[in-house]
Parts: sequence; structure tokens; C-alpha cells
Amino acid sequence: MGNTVIEKIIRHNTGKDVKPGDIVTVNVDRVMIHDIFIPFVGDKFEEMGFTKLWDPDKVVLIYDHLVPASQVDDTRHFHKGDEFAKKYGMKNVHRSDGICHQLMTEAGYVKPGDVVFGTDSHTTTYGCVGAFSSGIGYTEMASILGTGTMWIKVPETIKVVIEGELPKNVMSKDIILRLIGDLGADGATYRALEFSGNTVENMTVASRMTIANMAIEAGAKCALFTPDEKTAEYCEIELNDYQKSLKGDEDAKYLRTITYRAEDFVPVMACPSQVDKIRDTSVLEGTPIDQVFIGSCTNGRLEDLQAAAEVLKGKKVADYVKLIVTPASRKIYLQASKMGILDTLAEAGAMITHPGCGLCCGRAGGILSDGERVVATNNRNFLGRMGTSKVEIYLASPKTAAACAVAGKIVTPEV
Amino acid sequence: MGNTVIEKIIRHNTGKDVKPGDIVTVNVDRVMIHDIFIPFVGDKFEEMGFTKLWDPDKVVLIYDHLVPASQVDDTRHFHKGDEFAKKYGMKNVHRSDGICHQLMTEAGYVKPGDVVFGTDSHTTTYGCVGAFSSGIGYTEMASILGTGTMWIKVPETIKVVIEGELPKNVMSKDIILRLIGDLGADGATYRALEFSGNTVENMTVASRMTIANMAIEAGAKCALFTPDEKTAEYCEIELNDYQKSLKGDEDAKYLRTITYRAEDFVPVMACPSQVDKIRDTSVLEGTPIDQVFIGSCTNGRLEDLQAAAEVLKGKKVADYVKLIVTPASRKIYLQASKMGILDTLAEAGAMITHPGCGLCCGRAGGILSDGERVVATNNRNFLGRMGTSKVEIYLASPKTAAACAVAGKIVTPEV
Repeated sequence: MGNTVIEKIIRHNTGKDVKPGDIVTVNVDRVMIHDIFIPFVGDKFEEMGFTKLWDPDKVVLIYDHLVPASQVDDTRHFHKGDEFAKKYGMKNVHRSDGICHQLMTEAGYVKPGDVVFGTDSHTTTYGCVGAFSSGIGYTEMASILGTGTMWIKVPETIKVVIEGELPKNVMSKDIILRLIGDLGADGATYRALEFSGNTVENMTVASRMTIANMAIEAGAKCALFTPDEKTAEYCEIELNDYQKSLKGDEDAKYLRTITYRAEDFVPVMACPSQVDKIRDTSVLEGTPIDQVFIGSCTNGRLEDLQAAAEVLKGKKVADYVKLIVTPASRKIYLQASKMGILDTLAEAGAMITHPGCGLCCGRAGGILSDGERVVATNNRNFLGRMGTSKVEIYLASPKTAAACAVAGKIVTPEV
Repeated sequence: MGNTVIEKIIRHNTGKDVKPGDIVTVNVDRVMIHDIFIPFVGDKFEEMGFTKLWDPDKVVLIYDHLVPASQVDDTRHFHKGDEFAKKYGMKNVHRSDGICHQLMTEAGYVKPGDVVFGTDSHTTTYGCVGAFSSGIGYTEMASILGTGTMWIKVPETIKVVIEGELPKNVMSKDIILRLIGDLGADGATYRALEFSGNTVENMTVASRMTIANMAIEAGAKCALFTPDEKTAEYCEIELNDYQKSLKGDEDAKYLRTITYRAEDFVPVMACPSQVDKIRDTSVLEGTPIDQVFIGSCTNGRLEDLQAAAEVLKGKKVADYVKLIVTPASRKIYLQASKMGILDTLAEAGAMITHPGCGLCCGRAGGILSDGERVVATNNRNFLGRMGTSKVEIYLASPKTAAACAVAGKIVTPEV
């Protein structure tokens, strides 16, 4: 019988003939630790009695949630991280280069078919290049740092097939929001989400990244896209035979297959305060807003900023609306700057912040107060995430968000 | 007998022959209220029984200290401000255009010879174009809003004469720091500081702005530069006879005259934690640092960013140092962006934030923790201003700050 992508990755990694439900030990190809967790990972690592990292080159430390520091004691995390990196001979430390999930693929730390863990829930992102990646806690991370291995239960797979051409005003964000709405926030818990179909094949790696990033919002253990020529180009590699094989077999066993026609997608929003409360943007039109946020590991890439700039070019953000734009990495910031995208956004009234997690995780750069409403391109609209618990967060695509910023209320983007 | 500049301005404004010590009522040409104070000004204005502004066009409301919002409830100030502006028919509201003192001159609200008050202590800044401007509290501001007038005591004047050519590694920041050191933090309390000499005449308006901005750090009621062709160009006006007359008379009576030879200036720093604890940078060399901040109403102008970019071009910020750069206004941000200055800074490792007061007033964008040391271009190194009370703040020029960022320790800039 054939295999799903996740089964192929785990078979290759373990050398074992696995099936869903099996508990196996995998060899970890790379791990990511971010600034919030490094003090706890470091303490736990030493408490466990480890004296050296299994492989310092496979460990990546990224400061992003607290960059630039917005609270007293934030920088203590950097000092803790710097000490740990120095003590254990780590070289892969990014102190202000951008958001962890962006950097892991952008800087070449993750390759198709790799097994990767990170201390952040959105570690599912690296499935965009066909890697098995998932978020873990700090105790598990400490254990990997010492052993290079991790136990997992082989997940069942839900296959998502999308065929056809997307409407012009629809972005991949609208796809993943709709899917989360259809599955429910726990609809894919501990399952692999495997994406295929010509719509997905025609997508940029950046668009796939948005989908893989939010797979966790349906509870998924991981999201997987088959590596192709775009993946190879993005990763600056030639795909090897193993990487080329990472496609679900025709006779693979799927828990469920969900099929969409691309033409049926419309701009949607996740409404306050559940990620799976998905509504067509058209039925929300006219709702007044106070702020718009375009950025995050979900939607802070060049194509996202470009889409926003196309909407905002020559226009002005509505008087009372604050528009915050946060590129996902320093590389993207510089690309967007050199292409004039940041100027276009700033001229329209946007406030452009340094790449980091800031507003998405409610730490800085546009914190909201009771009764305010924000349209945001990030991945969670939980109570209290971007300010007080009386803030209403509507999640949307960058095109929709930009259109709302100009209108000063919820609108459906025209193109 | 002749008059000093401040005497000429007050005579012109009141039509009275005034002398230092006289208590007079002036007609106010313009006022500035910033986001932190607007709720208190508004409440007090209504408590005083006023029902309309004396002249809505003369009132400018600027959101800068809390932009973008970094704390829960910051945005309540914006809502309070928006309500006040709407209720009383104000049009001059800047919601994310930059730092108040930059905008007041840059956006043409202040002209040479004007009498201007603001709810921020660094309102002395507008002396850069020969205006009498000073900071006041919210009760006084509420009173002006209703009456258009304000009492003042005519200040005595300290004359500061600087002649000659500054060394290449010296900026106007080094001049004002040295002067504050020589006068002491209370050495000019309630006096006017009047600047003249060919060094001052050869300075850009931006450089004069840095000096006027920090005059308050010696306690000065105001700082005054004689309007000239550069002022006219900056303000986009032709100077009228009154404005041309704003030069201290030869036989004016000064409390004191301080004379400097430009060639004697060297790069200096205000050391923790007094603004008047001035030391030559050369004697501080080698002191390790954690962060560098280039920005604020003191030193966030185009020439400041340009000076920093010249030092940082093709170099990298030291590994463990965080470099935060905050342009003083959206206009400067866009100018610096189009000139490639922001790219140069970002490529060197800088984190560029949206124009605002953020880090200078300790609200966001690089908050420091116990035991950390920062070299900063802003205007105050008071205990706890940019983080905890155990942070050491060294105030310096943008050239010095940029050189320190590369070295990772205090150094004297070469050029």
C-alpha cells in the first residue's frame, strides 16, 4: 500500500515501515528556539544533566518576539540566549533579522523532507517546503538539544485538494481561513494536512507558507506541500530523489479528503474571537474599524506587502485608522524598500516597524484598548491577543486588510 | 538702550517697552498639545467653563509619544484627542506623522518671531527659527485655549557666542552638551539663551534645532537663533522687517556672555545620570555598551541619519549591540528612504522604527534592563528614562553614536 507524505518522511528518517498511530523516535535535522523560551530551555537542558549540544550547528536561536524590546527585562532573554550560545558553541544566532519562521526557510535552515521542531506553535510553517515541522514545549526542546531525537506518534493525514484558478481578490490566506472554518479549530488535531491540486502547484512558496503557518489553527501536527521546482529555487538547492518522492501515493490511506474548486473561494475573515468563526467579508461590510495590521509570520512577506501597496498606492489610510506594517524579515524589509513598496505604504499613512513579532503577540507596535476593532493579517484572534480582552480582532488577507485601511471600515477588496 | 532677541519679541507681541523681570501678558500665536496631555488639557478646559477655542486654527494636536501604541489604554488618548478636536472644530491633528517638535517647524506652524507654547518641556526647540517657545503644564494650556493669552516674566538673557570652524567629528549636539556642562543643569533657569557668532550662522536650521531643543536641560525658558536666509528657506517664507530685526543689539544688556572658539570643541557625552555630567568621549573610550539609539526630537533629522549612515556604510553593528534608529518625522523617514539612507542603516544591522517618541521617553522600541548601557542621541539620561533605574544612558551626537554601534563600545568618531 502507498504512503502519505508524512509517512514517507518518517519512514525515511527512521528506516522503519510506519503506519498512523505508531510511536517512533525520529532523528531531528534542525531545531529553532526563540527569545521568549530560551531561558527556560537553557535551564531545563542543564537540569537534565546535559553538558553539550548534540550538534550545535543544528540549533538555531532567533530573537523576534521581544525585538525591539518593549518591556523592562525583555533584554534579559537576549543575555540568557547569548550566554547559552557562547557556552555551547552555537553559531546560528539571529538577534534582529526577523521572525523565526520566516528565517528558518529564508536563511536555508530547513530543506524539503527534513524533520524540524521549534518552540513556537507556528513551526508548522516549514511544511511549505515539504518539511515535517511542529511546535513543542521547552522540556521537549531541552531533551532534543541533548539527544538529537524526539518521539512522535505517526499522524493520520487529511488530504486537501484544490483545483482551478483563484479569483483575483482571493489570497492563500482566504483558503486557509476557509479550511479552518470548515474543519473547526480542533478538526485536524494531531493530523497531517497534505495539500495538492493545481491551485497549490501554481502557488508561490510564500503563499504556501501562509497556509502551512495556520495549519496549527485547525490543530494540525503539521502541514505538507510537495517539493517542486519553486521549492528548489526558494531553497537554492536541487531536489534529490528522496525530496522528489514526497508526494502522496495514489493508493495512500487518508483519513479524509476535502476538495475545493478555486473559483469558489471569496475573501473571508475570522471573526472575534475564534479562528474558525469564518464569514464572507461581504456580509461584514461597513463594520467600522480602528486599526489595520499587515505583517507577521503569516502574511509579512514580499508578495503580501506588494499586494497591500497595490491597494494603497496613491491613496490615504482613513483619518482615524492606524495602519501598522511589519515585514517578516530584514531581507524582506530591504527588498520591499528597494522596490519602493515601503515608500508607497508610508506615503499612504502606514507606520512601518522593524521586522519582529511585536503586535501579533500583543507586545508592542499598535496595542489596542477596550472597544477597538482591528483587521489583521496574522494568525490568531484570541481574546486579549493584541491588547485588552475587549478588542475585536478580524483576521484577513493583506489585500482585504489594505482595502479596509483605506475605507476605514470592513470592505471586500475589488482585485 | 538696545534689546536682546527675547525682549524684541515680547515688545513686538505686547506693544510694551519691557525689561527683564516684568510680568506681561502675551498674545499666543500657536500652541502644541501632544497625546499624553490631551485628556488632561481637555478636561481642564471644560472645567474652567470654556465652551470654545480662542482660535481652532492656532491649536495643533500631535500624537507622538504613544505612536504606535505600546501599552493597553494608550489609544484611549487618541480617542480623547479625536473627540476634542471634533467637538471644538480643530483641523490641525497629526495622528502618526512624527515627533511634535519636528512637525511644528517642519509643517510650517511656527514662524520667526512667533510666541508659541507646548505641553512638552522640549518646546524650546522652535527657537531654532527665532520663535519664543516654551513648555507649559496642562492647566496653563487649558487657559490659553480659552483666552489666547499667557502671562510670562520677561527673562534675562545669556548670550552664547561661537566663532570659527568646528572639527569634522563634532556636531551641534557636542556644542549644546558642552554648554550644559559649563552652565550646569540649573545654570540658565528661566533665562533666554541667545546664540550668535559665525559658527552658528554657518549651521543648518536642523543643527540649530538640536541646540534649541536641549536648552531646557540647562533650565532655559527659551533658546533663540537670529532668523536668516536659511531660516527663511526652511520656513518657506520671506522674512519681514520684524523677523529681520530679531538680532541682539550691540548695546543690549546681557546677564552674561559666554564665548567659545569652535576649534576647541571635541566629541563629548553626558554621562549617567545627569545631563550636565559632561566628559570628553576620549576619556570614556573602551566602555562596553549594549545598545545605541539614534533618533528623537533632538537628533532624528535627515542630517543626523545621514551622518550615521556615513559611519555605518559597508560596516556592521557589533554582534551584541542593538542599534535602534527612529527618524523624527514621516517626511524625514521618506526623504531618508528615497536617498537610500535607511537601506544603508538596515544593511548595517539597524532596526528602524516608525517616527515617534517611543524609546526616548521609555515607552517602546528598545527598552533596557538592569546593568545595560546605551549610547543615545536624545536629550535626557535621567534614571529610569529608557528602562530600569539601573540602566546607564550616555548622551552623544549621531556620529559618535554610530561609531560606538560599530565598535560595540564607546569610541571617539574619526570624522
